Amino acid sequence: MKQQIKLLVLAVAFAGNIPLGFGQQSNKVIEDFKPSSVNQSEKEYPQVNSEGRVRVQISAPEANKVQLDIGAVKYDLVKDENGVWTGESAPQDVGFHYYQLNIDGASVPDPGSLYFYGASRWGSGIEIPAKDDEFYSLKNLPHGEVRENIYYSKTNDALRRCFIYTPPGYQENLEKRYPVLYLQHGGGENETGWSSQGHANLIMDNLIAEGKSEPFIIVMDNGTWRMPENSPSADRSKGTWPPEGWAGNFMNTLLNDIIPMVDAKFRTIPDANHRAMAGLSMGGMQTRIVTLAHPEVFSYVGMFSGGSISPEDIEKFPAFKDEIKTLFISYGSSELENRRSGFGGDPKANTQALAEKGLDTHFYVSPNTAHEWQSWRRSLYEFAPLLFKN
Amino acid sequence: MKQQIKLLVLAVAFAGNIPLGFGQQSNKVIEDFKPSSVNQSEKEYPQVNSEGRVRVQISAPEANKVQLDIGAVKYDLVKDENGVWTGESAPQDVGFHYYQLNIDGASVPDPGSLYFYGASRWGSGIEIPAKDDEFYSLKNLPHGEVRENIYYSKTNDALRRCFIYTPPGYQENLEKRYPVLYLQHGGGENETGWSSQGHANLIMDNLIAEGKSEPFIIVMDNGTWRMPENSPSADRSKGTWPPEGWAGNFMNTLLNDIIPMVDAKFRTIPDANHRAMAGLSMGGMQTRIVTLAHPEVFSYVGMFSGGSISPEDIEKFPAFKDEIKTLFISYGSSELENRRSGFGGDPKANTQALAEKGLDTHFYVSPNTAHEWQSWRRSLYEFAPLLFKN
Repeated sequence: MKQQIKLLVLAVAFAGNIPLGFGQQSNKVIEDFKPSSVNQSEKEYPQVNSEGRVRVQISAPEANKVQLDIGAVKYDLVKDENGVWTGESAPQDVGFHYYQLNIDGASVPDPGSLYFYGASRWGSGIEIPAKDDEFYSLKNLPHGEVRENIYYSKTNDALRRCFIYTPPGYQENLEKRYPVLYLQHGGGENETGWSSQGHANLIMDNLIAEGKSEPFIIVMDNGTWRMPENSPSADRSKGTWPPEGWAGNFMNTLLNDIIPMVDAKFRTIPDANHRAMAGLSMGGMQTRIVTLAHPEVFSYVGMFSGGSISPEDIEKFPAFKDEIKTLFISYGSSELENRRSGFGGDPKANTQALAEKGLDTHFYVSPNTAHEWQSWRRSLYEFAPLLFKN
Repeated sequence: MKQQIKLLVLAVAFAGNIPLGFGQQSNKVIEDFKPSSVNQSEKEYPQVNSEGRVRVQISAPEANKVQLDIGAVKYDLVKDENGVWTGESAPQDVGFHYYQLNIDGASVPDPGSLYFYGASRWGSGIEIPAKDDEFYSLKNLPHGEVRENIYYSKTNDALRRCFIYTPPGYQENLEKRYPVLYLQHGGGENETGWSSQGHANLIMDNLIAEGKSEPFIIVMDNGTWRMPENSPSADRSKGTWPPEGWAGNFMNTLLNDIIPMVDAKFRTIPDANHRAMAGLSMGGMQTRIVTLAHPEVFSYVGMFSGGSISPEDIEKFPAFKDEIKTLFISYGSSELENRRSGFGGDPKANTQALAEKGLDTHFYVSPNTAHEWQSWRRSLYEFAPLLFKN
């Protein structure tokens, strides 16, 4: 019976993201809320129930209106006699989501949650437990390190920061050298995303402990780029992006500063056979542009919710087919259904066409997720075992 | 003229932290506000002026009352015709301060600032530029790394996290082994404090580049402890702390789990001659208890705003005087003036008495700062050059 209600509510929510306010829906809400796993220490709220609803609570005795803003929907909270406001959202997809509170018109982080960088701001995040969360959970097994690395970039004439994951054993086996994956975040995110909300380090620790992946280094840098004002081709509404501008600066930084710095400072195997690039969303689109232009630098390519490589791309950049050993394309199931047409063509058809041309391709769809971190965690989990095995 | 006004306002503010609201004081405010150096990317507010005032701004069209809460004082903001609230604080000490906004009774982080862990919550922080900020600023010179390190603790039967600073050259000189400083945060803070608001890594990078400090590893773990309920000696109001309880758990974790883990995983020189412990506030008090009880484990001791070692301590723990090579005690100047009496005795007199007994002691006072991060940054800067030279 509970299951039926849940499916019904999900169906309603899916039909058009109708706000389901607290109160009207209270007879349908399952009362098994627990504090979110990404709450600040000892904070009781926000909470999540088995339907994936998010319940928030905040004391604001003098406020007129308080809302929970999650998944592009605002849900009204209700005030009790002590001035404490409470309310919950419609069920959310499993995995990680950004959200915020709105207090009398002010958008602010929830003081109960930990904070994450996404949507171009540091703000609240919540974790909806997933049945498959075991692959990114913290376990008592050998752990790699995530290192904050500061370096000078000639391309930008600036000091920059990246995070570098070194796998378990890196500190002990001082003779051993390792392959490297350059792994990029999405638009409005930064170099912290993959090791914070992405759990890239835990995904790798778990895969390596089970013998499912080679140990390798992961470099997570900041690929943020701003559309130059008055750029003639800077019209996102037409689906055209200015490749030189938006990926060009990061491409130069990656090729001329980041890769040489990593090869000098870390015990890498500094050749194309032992170098991969992948990214999510904007980072996937950057991966596409960088690896089409410079397939001689990389052997493995992953694009998570970030487009695909088409037969036309291969005609323009024929070296890609000869140099790249493995191409991995992935999407969340629901974003694939709603994919904007005209943006680089159908990713599944493109990938199939490349397979027919003899490229080792992999097409993965994350079940029941959208353009969000659960799709990208799963994508890394599927992609990593393919790397550096050829 | 401006200088006179500044001194006057400082004097007033010092006299008893009188709230200086926006509006009444506007004729005295110097209009040279700039965005804080710890703002989120591209955020214009919060801002700081040359007097050290903090100005915040937030859009909250439907709010009745918005306040800036900093330094235990709440300052009313004023609303303009667009629903944007603005206001500023009295001048603050140079360095780092925690703060928050209060919107109709809700205490929330400022969406313009970066977030820091302190006062037992993740929340807003602000940086008041200091004339001596050069020693912790980011420069183009060799940088060490700050590494997130996950490990299993038998004492707690739990996976824990610490941050470990490895100095420049650690990755290149694979034969070299290094001394270690165990460096603790204060109450309501955690293992992120020293490398985030404390800038311990930048302080060390700069000292090492100038040849003023030996390169060494720094381990920053979480010393948070909770007063057991119903503990007979758990009465902070009387100035008595239960040593076994409040420092005991962290002492056991440090001695039995953290130090062996660090010595196994990092290229340390694993003996007492090459091991130091220091901490700020609660971390200083933990340093006192741990090093008095186990002087055979450490050779260098630093207590920043965290009490001192008295002649009575040395009588109780005579090995301390024989084993410890250097004892460093420090305070912010204004907290020293207002120091609670009866808490471990006068730190300067205690330190002088120990010097007369033949111990190598150092007593440092941070000018014009209180119980706050600028005192502790300066303390580390003064302490580090004393280490591992004997």
